Amino acid sequence: MTMFGVGENEIVPLLTTVAGRDLDRGELEELFARAAWSGIAEPGDRMAGALVAQLGAAPALRTLMKSPTAEQLAAALEIDKPTDAQAAIDRWMPRLKPSDALAGLKRAARVGARLLVPSDLHWPDGVDDLAEHAPLALWVRGTDAALDALSRSIALVGARAATGYGEHVTMEASAGLVDRGYSIVSGAAYGIDGMAHRAALASHGQTVAFLAGGVDRFYPSGHDALLTRIAEVGAVVSELPCGQAPTKWRFLQRNRLIAAASRATVVLEAGWRSGSLNTAGHAATLGRPLGAVPGPVTSAASAGCHRLIRDYTAICVTNPDEMAELAPLETAPALFSDASDPGSPSSDLVRLYDALSSRSPRTAADIAARSGLSIAEVQGLLGALELEGEVAERERGWVRATRG
Amino acid sequence: MTMFGVGENEIVPLLTTVAGRDLDRGELEELFARAAWSGIAEPGDRMAGALVAQLGAAPALRTLMKSPTAEQLAAALEIDKPTDAQAAIDRWMPRLKPSDALAGLKRAARVGARLLVPSDLHWPDGVDDLAEHAPLALWVRGTDAALDALSRSIALVGARAATGYGEHVTMEASAGLVDRGYSIVSGAAYGIDGMAHRAALASHGQTVAFLAGGVDRFYPSGHDALLTRIAEVGAVVSELPCGQAPTKWRFLQRNRLIAAASRATVVLEAGWRSGSLNTAGHAATLGRPLGAVPGPVTSAASAGCHRLIRDYTAICVTNPDEMAELAPLETAPALFSDASDPGSPSSDLVRLYDALSSRSPRTAADIAARSGLSIAEVQGLLGALELEGEVAERERGWVRATRG
Repeated sequence: MTMFGVGENEIVPLLTTVAGRDLDRGELEELFARAAWSGIAEPGDRMAGALVAQLGAAPALRTLMKSPTAEQLAAALEIDKPTDAQAAIDRWMPRLKPSDALAGLKRAARVGARLLVPSDLHWPDGVDDLAEHAPLALWVRGTDAALDALSRSIALVGARAATGYGEHVTMEASAGLVDRGYSIVSGAAYGIDGMAHRAALASHGQTVAFLAGGVDRFYPSGHDALLTRIAEVGAVVSELPCGQAPTKWRFLQRNRLIAAASRATVVLEAGWRSGSLNTAGHAATLGRPLGAVPGPVTSAASAGCHRLIRDYTAICVTNPDEMAELAPLETAPALFSDASDPGSPSSDLVRLYDALSSRSPRTAADIAARSGLSIAEVQGLLGALELEGEVAERERGWVRATRG
Repeated sequence: MTMFGVGENEIVPLLTTVAGRDLDRGELEELFARAAWSGIAEPGDRMAGALVAQLGAAPALRTLMKSPTAEQLAAALEIDKPTDAQAAIDRWMPRLKPSDALAGLKRAARVGARLLVPSDLHWPDGVDDLAEHAPLALWVRGTDAALDALSRSIALVGARAATGYGEHVTMEASAGLVDRGYSIVSGAAYGIDGMAHRAALASHGQTVAFLAGGVDRFYPSGHDALLTRIAEVGAVVSELPCGQAPTKWRFLQRNRLIAAASRATVVLEAGWRSGSLNTAGHAATLGRPLGAVPGPVTSAASAGCHRLIRDYTAICVTNPDEMAELAPLETAPALFSDASDPGSPSSDLVRLYDALSSRSPRTAADIAARSGLSIAEVQGLLGALELEGEVAERERGWVRATRG
């Protein structure tokens, strides 16, 4: 038996590994097709997004494997321009190699990466706002808790060529937002991005790094140790299969994921032409709140931030409180609303709540053991709940807050 | 013969001196009455403004000298509330001493101060936008050119407790705006204000200082030399008669004059509660463009500027070009529009233009001698005209630009 021309003996165990659970036949085909599509179409390919949305990932891949004419593809896409369809065929066909998809899956399995598809419980809803430009799949090295925490994340981005001022402000911002229950999203670049991740880790907060290449090869290489640590306690995410190298185009498209996955974007330090202004542009296009941190007008490294405030209606933000105001967190009752759905973030909250006592203080490790959640997940949830007055930290651990 | 109870032998020569020209009987009475009113009513007194607007300054003073009842004053003001009228009577009557007005005029004459009234050619039109809160008179030590230059002025204000950063940015701003043909308005305080004036003077630009007390006693005393220099080549202006001390209230009211007399206000450095935010508030209330210069978020001295950008829709301005954009200067043809009115700014322009050649470069001193304008006036006008491409500076002086 084969699936898309690949032997099932080989592919099914791989797919089960990257899914992290057993899958039925339809799920296996969906997963393989999305793995393949993530290598066939470049990030943000509108035509690929439209075809997959129209037919489903597996039927779309089957259509492509039949070497359709431009007219056939245009008909499948319900578009009038065979030239657009022909251009898509010309882009996709050279990459239509099931063996490439297989190689990507093998590399993913080797580094323990998972493959998320939109139906996944931990799929970050924010990226769906990209519509036809949404990613077809996400390759992840990290925890479910970190993925779930994207729903309360703020992106902290900025220039690689950061100054001491920019790094200092980024550290304060990241640590301060973690203290307020937020997760920190960034791009793992040198300078501001790296500082944002590091400060989040140092504050025991959640952090997610979006990469422009495969998650098997951390980029930049000088951040290998940092990204390894993020993959352990947070998450490293890419829409490109393992083995793929970052390119200029992929960096720009990666920026759209940072903006879309977060509830707000803050640019901490950026020169007049910094790439982080591209992320800011995506946030603005998506209608996500956008903040920029001012700096000395004598510093070229802040010129991009001033430009955003002056010409692109970014909000001037000067401290973590003002950044948090860009995307206020929901109150606890809202978090509990769909607790009946097992595996949902709310279900984690119920389990955490069950493991808490209102009288005996319990450590995060104790709560993790009682709830079956990881310590990192417990710490993230406790931080958010503390902010909402649902839990309190005592000298010897955490207690459930008593009301009225 | 007496005027408002003061001997005419004494008062007429004084009034002629502070007017700077011969006056007819009506003008003499108007001038004396406004001199008196400027000592009777505190700056910004809405009731005094309304009474003078209703009756004229001299009839209003005569009404007051008849010790009107609250009902009579309310009738004159066409208001329904005799209590408001009574409060005004209570404020004004203790100060209704023609001898005080005489003393103020004597002090003014001694220091060479002039008294401007709204009908004066050099009265700054901007302050009339204050309506009932407009000043009743302005005491001036300085040049007509400096007063006229208020029509192309930008107010540069900020905290007394300025940092090296704030002073540096202020120096660049003031010099850069002077280079672009603007006059610089400020409040002569230590810190940002003082730097704004100094840099304008150093760049041979026009500058005007508004004081909260009489122009005979410069405040702060540490800026005596600076204010003396401003009075020589620019102008020092106050709505309070000579001999009056600055008070907290008068500083706040002085700020409204800075905002109203200028075409735009820029706050260069200000703490969270700096008095310069009061000036910014006046500018915003008047609908004048308001700019603020960002600084490090780690500097408390910039917190007020960030507050203005964040919460009060001040424009983020980072250099003189962006400040100039707040209040673009008219093009040359508009400046020439009412050239038939002798003594008007446009008339100065015509005289300057007549003194220029399109072939022989002439120095500012040469042009001043030919036109009958002061060197400072010539330099101010040349700066504005150069910006508009009407004149050009050659190695040995200025020429009229040839067109087409």
